[in-house]
Amino acid sequence: PDHFFLIAGPCVVENEELVMEVAHKVSSICKRLEVPYVFKASYRKANRTSANSFTGIGDDNGLSLIKKVGEAFNLPTTSDIHAHEEAAMAAPFIDILQIPAFLCRQTDLLVAAAETGKIVNVKKGQFLSGPSMKFAADKIKKAGNEKVMLTERGNTFGYTDLVVDYRNITWMKEIGVPVIMDCTHSLQQPNQTSGVTGGNPQLIGTVASAAIATGADGLFIETHPDPSCALSDGANMLRLDLLEGLLEKLVKLRKAVV
Amino acid sequence: PDHFFLIAGPCVVENEELVMEVAHKVSSICKRLEVPYVFKASYRKANRTSANSFTGIGDDNGLSLIKKVGEAFNLPTTSDIHAHEEAAMAAPFIDILQIPAFLCRQTDLLVAAAETGKIVNVKKGQFLSGPSMKFAADKIKKAGNEKVMLTERGNTFGYTDLVVDYRNITWMKEIGVPVIMDCTHSLQQPNQTSGVTGGNPQLIGTVASAAIATGADGLFIETHPDPSCALSDGANMLRLDLLEGLLEKLVKLRKAVV
Amino acid sequence: PDHFFLIAGPCVVENEELVMEVAHKVSSICKRLEVPYVFKASYRKANRTSANSFTGIGDDNGLSLIKKVGEAFNLPTTSDIHAHEEAAMAAPFIDILQIPAFLCRQTDLLVAAAETGKIVNVKKGQFLSGPSMKFAADKIKKAGNEKVMLTERGNTFGYTDLVVDYRNITWMKEIGVPVIMDCTHSLQQPNQTSGVTGGNPQLIGTVASAAIATGADGLFIETHPDPSCALSDGANMLRLDLLEGLLEKLVKLRKAVV
Amino acid sequence: PDHFFLIAGPCVVENEELVMEVAHKVSSICKRLEVPYVFKASYRKANRTSANSFTGIGDDNGLSLIKKVGEAFNLPTTSDIHAHEEAAMAAPFIDILQIPAFLCRQTDLLVAAAETGKIVNVKKGQFLSGPSMKFAADKIKKAGNEKVMLTERGNTFGYTDLVVDYRNITWMKEIGVPVIMDCTHSLQQPNQTSGVTGGNPQLIGTVASAAIATGADGLFIETHPDPSCALSDGANMLRLDLLEGLLEKLVKLRKAVV
Repeated sequence: PDHFFLIAGPCVVENEELVMEVAHKVSSICKRLEVPYVFKASYRKANRTSANSFTGIGDDNGLSLIKKVGEAFNLPTTSDIHAHEEAAMAAPFIDILQIPAFLCRQTDLLVAAAETGKIVNVKKGQFLSGPSMKFAADKIKKAGNEKVMLTERGNTFGYTDLVVDYRNITWMKEIGVPVIMDCTHSLQQPNQTSGVTGGNPQLIGTVASAAIATGADGLFIETHPDPSCALSDGANMLRLDLLEGLLEKLVKLRKAVV
Repeated sequence: PDHFFLIAGPCVVENEELVMEVAHKVSSICKRLEVPYVFKASYRKANRTSANSFTGIGDDNGLSLIKKVGEAFNLPTTSDIHAHEEAAMAAPFIDILQIPAFLCRQTDLLVAAAETGKIVNVKKGQFLSGPSMKFAADKIKKAGNEKVMLTERGNTFGYTDLVVDYRNITWMKEIGVPVIMDCTHSLQQPNQTSGVTGGNPQLIGTVASAAIATGADGLFIETHPDPSCALSDGANMLRLDLLEGLLEKLVKLRKAVV
Repeated sequence: PDHFFLIAGPCVVENEELVMEVAHKVSSICKRLEVPYVFKASYRKANRTSANSFTGIGDDNGLSLIKKVGEAFNLPTTSDIHAHEEAAMAAPFIDILQIPAFLCRQTDLLVAAAETGKIVNVKKGQFLSGPSMKFAADKIKKAGNEKVMLTERGNTFGYTDLVVDYRNITWMKEIGVPVIMDCTHSLQQPNQTSGVTGGNPQLIGTVASAAIATGADGLFIETHPDPSCALSDGANMLRLDLLEGLLEKLVKLRKAVV
Repeated sequence: PDHFFLIAGPCVVENEELVMEVAHKVSSICKRLEVPYVFKASYRKANRTSANSFTGIGDDNGLSLIKKVGEAFNLPTTSDIHAHEEAAMAAPFIDILQIPAFLCRQTDLLVAAAETGKIVNVKKGQFLSGPSMKFAADKIKKAGNEKVMLTERGNTFGYTDLVVDYRNITWMKEIGVPVIMDCTHSLQQPNQTSGVTGGNPQLIGTVASAAIATGADGLFIETHPDPSCALSDGANMLRLDLLEGLLEKLVKLRKAVV
């Protein structure tokens, strides 16, 4: 296709006002730029480093607000699930079930997601190569669901850094499924002594540009009106008012690739 | 204490004959060498690379056989759980609940394990530093269970290799809990194109010796009478008849450390 | 500038016929595409893995042929030096002195290169971060030479692989010097048991596209009419007849970036 | 042999008083513990990160003082060389020529060192595997010198950390030469934004113990009466008054290994 698609939203459903504001602004920008837009927010954070971190406003509340956003702005939506029984719970509310990177090898979870019939987007583990994601895709297909997408989110590079290996874009496209670059979590700085994962948001443009140039089909970008106040992942989210300029550049780049 | 302890057994409960044979032989050796012994076998493999791999003989059958082994040889036992609801299911059958490395950040799983009141042994993720495991231990303690152990199993080192950083033994001991070296999975060679994780079993002695020298409290070693026929992890298990010679050397080394 | 520049040629001066053929073909392509072209060949290979590998046809012969190529096709030229006394020896024959990655921290070598007054292109060590290359650039500037360029060539990623971290393009550009992507050596597979470094030449397009998208000023590509017969680095060189198609795509991409 | 040997001294020859003090104290300790001792100091630092760092008191002065130390205390001595012409210059003053890790692939340097007839100790590059060091040893042997030693000093692990892979001790011993663990530089923290390499000296005991347990023949430890005042590598050197206690533990450990 001529256009890449965008999966974007705040890291977690903090409250109705926030998700509505983000969806409103991002959908306006994407409409103008003809970028297909999927609204994303987590209804729960299940693997925060520290037990003291914010984890959500309740699964029901979170999922209902995501659905409300989708209906209000006529957008497909996505969120991440963390245990096999969540697949059936979340499926009625969203269009794409996202499998977290740490869980990409959990067969029960992949199969449960597959069985909902929804699109399943598996994030590549920080410990996995692109070609190995074929086995994750196969688990979903074997469960009867061909609607698989794979997301690159960087690989472990020492304890406190991740590196994005763009060969993985090429290799995962050879699996025959859409490939997405997660521009947010690829820039995480894990294993901080504070128990709060750090980040490098000023490099989002670098990560996104290289992804488009190497053929990524979609981008994943977490965005927030004020990342410094965000309840999760503030260190990496893009300030919402910077999104439009970034997308304009990427749309131009994409036209030179296809 | 003067002695290190040993967690050992076949990777997975294949059948009754196998688990009885392994427990019989290992418990005899450990009795002679005064090494406290915990029998280990998985009742299910939940994160095999490929959907076609063997995953077990059924949870009930597997857990019952582990309990039977413990009673027959008067041994504490351990097995790994993969979802929060498995904690309460498995706890009546075993003494130590093991949390897989990929899942060491899943708060729900850690809390459910903690709430059984059993000892919880968390394997360090391939993507985590030793000091970060403090946050996993804290999640368990905050749920009211002080009986935590941590297991080193190597860190991601490129796509197809793991490396053991022995600084992690020192760092995790500073958390104030027993620290175990998993000598089997530390030698895995992940991301093979075959979908079958490779290994380096001839280096088990190297991994174990360095662990004892740096103060590990326990060792984890998967062993099988004939690894080439094993239904899981054959590439890394120690041939059962090599265990006694290895333990003799390690016992001698331990005496020079404490 | 509107255009990126290209440093290209065979890995090593094998004989006159080869260097003339490559320079002729590449200069024709670059003229048509308006890509500034610098001819590259090594006059000696000083750090081959194995003592049995081909190392050159003699320094004088090699350097003379490089100069001859430059004059015949009116091209600037470059080659790599390996010891401080080679700087003064090589400078009369070439326009850009290249410092090998393993040697990028050798102060004597950097200073000797700087003192020739020629452009000095320092390849980033496989063990260094982009921001650290500031210290290499400073050593050259402190010796009175402001004509510095820096080249990315991948970072150590386990024993047998390299990974290109494109954040380094962004970070090195902040140093204020031209930044080049070495598309050939970034794809090396070091530490092979054979003693012959392996490669992945089919991924040259991936590496080059991401570099242009992230703002690289130049590309370095080793090319050979028949890489399988090349006397050095055959595993990574681009087949000469594939160069034109690749450059066309990259020129188009560049126009969308600047 | 029953004992491991020790290569120790200050990082660089700062002045006569320092080298005499260190050699006096270390040789007394080693005599008592029956640990064969080789005095080490660099006469020049050739690859400091920053051009502003201290590099030595002059080659002649440095080498003469090293020789004087050797004669005064009847000790073999070692120092590192950085260019092929330094081999013949340094050889009359020292017993073991050490090749720096960054330079372990430079054939000219290895051959020049070999041709002095002295023992050649090659440090393993941060980018190399243990088995690959066979090719370095072979270059020296091919030049007619069988007296090769290899030194482990950690591998690149992200930008700002090194990791010691003890499998390399096992693998390099299979090459059939003495293997040394550099306990000082293995703990470096490279690529600091300050341009001064950091360190973790409190972990020297961890690194050394694991090395002895896995069969290292020798240890390399830089030591200084007051590391905080040292002119190079202060971040990693062991305080001289801590050496004796460490060696006592290691001697005890060694007896349990052989």
